[in-house]
Amino acid sequence: MSLERFSFNQATATHWPMEDLVAGCVDAGVPGVGLWREQVAEYGLAKTAALVRGAGLAVTSLCRGGFFSADGWLDENRRAIDEAATLGAPTLVLVSGGMPPGSRDIDAARAHVGEAIGELVPHARAAGVRLAIEPLHPMYCSDRCVVSTLGQALELAAPHPVETVGVVIDTYHLWWDDQVWAQLERAGRQGRIACFQVADWVTPLPEGVLLGRAMPGEGCVELRRFREAVDAAGYTGPVEVEIFNAEVWARPGRTILDAATDGYLRYVA
Amino acid sequence: MSLERFSFNQATATHWPMEDLVAGCVDAGVPGVGLWREQVAEYGLAKTAALVRGAGLAVTSLCRGGFFSADGWLDENRRAIDEAATLGAPTLVLVSGGMPPGSRDIDAARAHVGEAIGELVPHARAAGVRLAIEPLHPMYCSDRCVVSTLGQALELAAPHPVETVGVVIDTYHLWWDDQVWAQLERAGRQGRIACFQVADWVTPLPEGVLLGRAMPGEGCVELRRFREAVDAAGYTGPVEVEIFNAEVWARPGRTILDAATDGYLRYVA
Repeated sequence: MSLERFSFNQATATHWPMEDLVAGCVDAGVPGVGLWREQVAEYGLAKTAALVRGAGLAVTSLCRGGFFSADGWLDENRRAIDEAATLGAPTLVLVSGGMPPGSRDIDAARAHVGEAIGELVPHARAAGVRLAIEPLHPMYCSDRCVVSTLGQALELAAPHPVETVGVVIDTYHLWWDDQVWAQLERAGRQGRIACFQVADWVTPLPEGVLLGRAMPGEGCVELRRFREAVDAAGYTGPVEVEIFNAEVWARPGRTILDAATDGYLRYVA
Repeated sequence: MSLERFSFNQATATHWPMEDLVAGCVDAGVPGVGLWREQVAEYGLAKTAALVRGAGLAVTSLCRGGFFSADGWLDENRRAIDEAATLGAPTLVLVSGGMPPGSRDIDAARAHVGEAIGELVPHARAAGVRLAIEPLHPMYCSDRCVVSTLGQALELAAPHPVETVGVVIDTYHLWWDDQVWAQLERAGRQGRIACFQVADWVTPLPEGVLLGRAMPGEGCVELRRFREAVDAAGYTGPVEVEIFNAEVWARPGRTILDAATDGYLRYVA
């Protein structure tokens, strides 16, 4: 087992400065990083692109586009696509957004996601960036992402070319779904798996339920089963560890990275 | 529109003493209540049965059996069935329990739920009590209920007679599921809808995600669409309003009941 497919998603050590993150990954033998638009903007887009390229790191994904219920979503998402292209990230992760404030029309919100993705496809194709629809756990349905299952994500992807629209498999969001194994096979058959992200599930969930993810092995998710299922479905890409957790964030970046690689090697690879 | 089908689930005003609850419901023209085992035990089983019968109230359900991963689950559930029979409650709601501590085997946990229900069926049938499998929101999958969708609940019910095993439709748990409308039709065709409970979804979720439910109309769930779908599926039974919310609980019982009937009439009936 090696770190060959491991990628460190920047959100896991969100306070680690970009240069330290890149140096730390190189030092640890980590070949790839998943980056976030906010951090990239803070350090500078061109500067980030030069930094990671100079370090020989792959940018495995850019997080995130989406939020299609927000004002200005179209321009914002086109910018995100362009940033992914500049960074050499093959994939832009889409968190599709929740329901508009005051709305009770979930069908309309979901239909709008489909239309929005359709509008972005030409720009993404021209830029050579793959849009990756991420189903989020149903507890985020109203305020972050109305796409709640892998089955839904595949339906949304279906009208579009596989090289331009794929899906994200994130263990934290999908582990509870008894249909997920069948949908993973389907996703693989269709060549739709664009990104594979790993986090573990623990309770109690914190207020707001955003920062409750755990390092691989600390929770109840069959992470290795997921990795094997994704592999069996034909996915050969990177495995990103992506944890949102305030207690984790309080640690030094390198300590977090070491915990992530350790958890990956022991419970995922 | 009337309160003819309305039932007040006791958990909505969990601190309201039993006698006040019953008197309040009678005074408000509410024909039914959903009771909880803890409160029933506190007031006394036979005494509660006599109280509600004397008041002319229907006991629409008893909450709750289940938690099949706990020690002593079989005896505990048989007792719950007997209590439902004593109270004249046609239905015992089953919250099936989460994964055993330290386990990562969700398939085994789900299989155990099926076996446990099978073990309870003879006792329930003899007692004339219907077991109602409640799918809980996937955010409770690890610690409260490994049954996360209506589809799963129907699969678990399938081997058993419809008069002995049904399912609970709770809007709070199911609203996010794009398959729920098809599954509601299926549940109706099979005659499996044993109980219909209503609560609304709001964010941010509180720590532990147990007490975040809102009164009908305060959130984003299409409650009337659910009620109409349940009716179209052939369900003619009670509509329970069941809210777990610490802020609601802090109010006087009658104030809570009035908010529940008002929300029911305006957003559900």
